[in-house]
Amino acid sequence: MREIYFDNAATTRVRPEVAELMMKVMTEDYGNPSARHIMGLKAEKYIKTAREQIARTLRVDPKEIYFTSGGTESNNLALIGTALSRQRRGRHIISTGIEHAAVYKPLDLLREQGFEVTILPVDEKGHISLEDLRAAIRPDTILVSLMYVNNEIGSIEPIAEAGRIIKEANPECYFHTDTIQAYGKLRIRPREEHIDMLSVSAHKIHGPKGAGFIYISDKARLHPIILGGGQERDMRSGTENVPGIAGLGLAAELYYREHDANVKRLISVRDRLIDRLSVMEGVRVNTGKDEGFAPQIVSASFSGVRAEVLLHALEDRGIYVSSGSACSSNHPAVSGTLRSIGLESSLLDSTLRFSFGLYSEPEDADICADVLSELLPMLRRFVRR
Amino acid sequence: MREIYFDNAATTRVRPEVAELMMKVMTEDYGNPSARHIMGLKAEKYIKTAREQIARTLRVDPKEIYFTSGGTESNNLALIGTALSRQRRGRHIISTGIEHAAVYKPLDLLREQGFEVTILPVDEKGHISLEDLRAAIRPDTILVSLMYVNNEIGSIEPIAEAGRIIKEANPECYFHTDTIQAYGKLRIRPREEHIDMLSVSAHKIHGPKGAGFIYISDKARLHPIILGGGQERDMRSGTENVPGIAGLGLAAELYYREHDANVKRLISVRDRLIDRLSVMEGVRVNTGKDEGFAPQIVSASFSGVRAEVLLHALEDRGIYVSSGSACSSNHPAVSGTLRSIGLESSLLDSTLRFSFGLYSEPEDADICADVLSELLPMLRRFVRR
Repeated sequence: MREIYFDNAATTRVRPEVAELMMKVMTEDYGNPSARHIMGLKAEKYIKTAREQIARTLRVDPKEIYFTSGGTESNNLALIGTALSRQRRGRHIISTGIEHAAVYKPLDLLREQGFEVTILPVDEKGHISLEDLRAAIRPDTILVSLMYVNNEIGSIEPIAEAGRIIKEANPECYFHTDTIQAYGKLRIRPREEHIDMLSVSAHKIHGPKGAGFIYISDKARLHPIILGGGQERDMRSGTENVPGIAGLGLAAELYYREHDANVKRLISVRDRLIDRLSVMEGVRVNTGKDEGFAPQIVSASFSGVRAEVLLHALEDRGIYVSSGSACSSNHPAVSGTLRSIGLESSLLDSTLRFSFGLYSEPEDADICADVLSELLPMLRRFVRR
Repeated sequence: MREIYFDNAATTRVRPEVAELMMKVMTEDYGNPSARHIMGLKAEKYIKTAREQIARTLRVDPKEIYFTSGGTESNNLALIGTALSRQRRGRHIISTGIEHAAVYKPLDLLREQGFEVTILPVDEKGHISLEDLRAAIRPDTILVSLMYVNNEIGSIEPIAEAGRIIKEANPECYFHTDTIQAYGKLRIRPREEHIDMLSVSAHKIHGPKGAGFIYISDKARLHPIILGGGQERDMRSGTENVPGIAGLGLAAELYYREHDANVKRLISVRDRLIDRLSVMEGVRVNTGKDEGFAPQIVSASFSGVRAEVLLHALEDRGIYVSSGSACSSNHPAVSGTLRSIGLESSLLDSTLRFSFGLYSEPEDADICADVLSELLPMLRRFVRR
C-alpha cells in the first residue's frame, strides 16, 4: 500500500541531504560557535552560511536574520518583543481572527497586561478587508500582525497592500507577518512589502523541528525574550542549535532553488484534489484555486461525517490528513478560522485539511479522492453523528 | 597528531547512537506529535520515552519534566516564569555572584521590573555560605536560584543543605538550581534536595544542541514564557523538537547507565591534570580535587601569559580549551566567577578552563601538561603582555 502523507502543513519529512548535513555537524563539527578555537570557528561558519542562504531567499541583509527554536518562538518574540520595546509609544495592536495560537495566545497575554487588540474579521474566503485595516490604524498603534498564509484553509492575505496602507497611515507602526505556512511556497519580499518582522519554522519546509528564524528589519527595535550569553547579537541567547540552523539554511536554499517547479507541482496536486472533491456529493471545498490561496493546502467539509471518523478511516488506507489545525496540542477548541469564514456550524466538526509537500504527486490526489468516494457513502450510512 | 578536545563544558560531540536515532526520527518517524494519525502517535511515543528516561535519572515523575530548546530557555522560564506567577506573594529573589549569564541576565531584567535581588558572595573556592543564605531569606522571598556546578571552576554548591534551609526558613519560597554543568556528572535527587526547578541542556551530555529540559516539581506553579499551541501541558508551546528530545532522552539514559565508570574516568583525567599543573612554575590551579568540585572541569591561571595567546598556542598543537566561559557570545566581560573567588587581577586574563567528556582519557591530560610545560617558558619569554 502506497502511503500518502497529506499533512505537510503540520510538519514535513526532513530531506535526506539536510539530515546528512546535520549528522556531520553533530558528530564532527560539533564545536560551540562561541569558542575561540578552530572548532568554534567552524561551527560559526555553518551559522553564517545559513544566514546568507536564508537572506538570499528574501533578498534581505543576512544581519536581519535571527535564529530561534522555531516559528512559535519567533511569533512570541515579534509580539512580546515589540510590546516591550514600544509600549511607551502606544499600546494598541491590530491582528485578525484567523491567526495561529502562536500569535493569538501572546496577544491574549498582552491584553491582560493592558494592551488593546483590534481583531479584523475575514470574508468567506478568509481574506481581511484593506478598508477595515486602514480604519483600524491609530496614532497609538504600535504593531499590526497578519498571517501571510492561513494554516487551515490556505488563504493568502494581501500583505504587500497591507504594508503600504500601514506605513501610509502610521509610519512608526511595526508590521509583523506569520509566514510559517507561506515561506517556501511564495516569493516573499519583506522590503517591497513593508514587512518589519516575519516568522519562519524549519520543519514546514522539510528542515528539522526545533529550528526557525525571525527576520527583523534593521529599522525595527525589539526586546529579546530569552536572555543570557548574548548570542544572535543579543536578540536570542543560548548556545546556537548549529545542526538545526545548518539544516534550516540548506532546506531553505533547496526549496527556493526549485521554487517554480515545486509550486507548479503543489498546485497541480491541489487543483486535482479540489476538482475531484468539488463534484462529490455533500462536500464543500473551503479553499479556492485562484491567486488568493496558497499552493499546498486544501480544506474541505464533509457533511454527515465527523472529521475524526473520516481521518481514521483514511488512516486505515494509508492516507494521513489533519482535522482542523494539528499544530496545537491535545484537543483544540473548534477552529477560529472555520468560524471566521462563516462555515455553517454543522460542518465545523466535519472538516479535514489536506496539505502537500515535496513528496506529493497529483496521482496521490487521485488515490485520495478515490478512497474518499468509496468511504463517504459507507460512513454516512453506518456512522451515527 | 591526536586532537584533544578539552572544551566539553562549552559543548560536546553528539554520541553516534544519539545522532543515528535522531536521523531515524527526522527522515522516517517525522510526524507532528499533535497529529491524530499513527505518524503523530509514533512521534508522541518518542517524547514519552525520553520523558521517562530522564525522570528515571532524577527519580521524579515523568510529568515533572518539560522539554525546552535548551538550558538558557529553561533558566529563563524558571526565573521569569516564577516571577510572573509569584509576584503577588513577594518580589525578593536570592542568587549568587557566580551564575551563568542565562541566570544573571534574566535577573537583571527582573530587577528593572522592580524585583529586589540579593546576591550571595562565594569564598575562594567558589562556595556560598549557608549562613549567608539563611540570613538572606525573607518572608517576601519568592525564589532562590543557585548554580549546582559552576561552569568556570567546577565548584559544587551545597544544594541539599541549601534546600533544607530554604524550606525551613520559608516553605513557600521556590528553589531553582542551574544544573547545566551538573547533570550527568553528579547524582541529583530533586525531591531529597528540596529542588523545585532545575535546568538542563542536552548538548553538555553528548546530546544535541537545541534541546534541553526543565524539571518543575508538581508543587510549583509557573507561567509559561512561550505561548501558543499548548504543547508540554501548556508550559512550552511550539511543535516539539522530536528528534532533539529523543536524542536528549537517549543521551541522558546512556550517560547515567555508565555513571560511576564515567565519573571515575573524568576524575582521573581531572586529577592527573591538576597534579601536573600544580607543580608547574607560575601556575595557580583554581579547582580542587576534593568533594567540593565537579569531575569534569579544571580552571588554572598562568601568570605572565595571556589566556588568548596560550589558547591559540595549544590549538596549534591540536588541544582545544576555553578562556573564561565559552557559553557567551562575542568577547565576554571579565569573568564574574574569577573575580568572586578573589583571583588577583593580573591573573583574570590569564585563566584557562579545561573540561572533559566521554572521549577524554588520562593520557590526554599528560599530553596537555607536556605541551604546556613546553609552551609556557617560551611564551613567557617572547610574548609581551
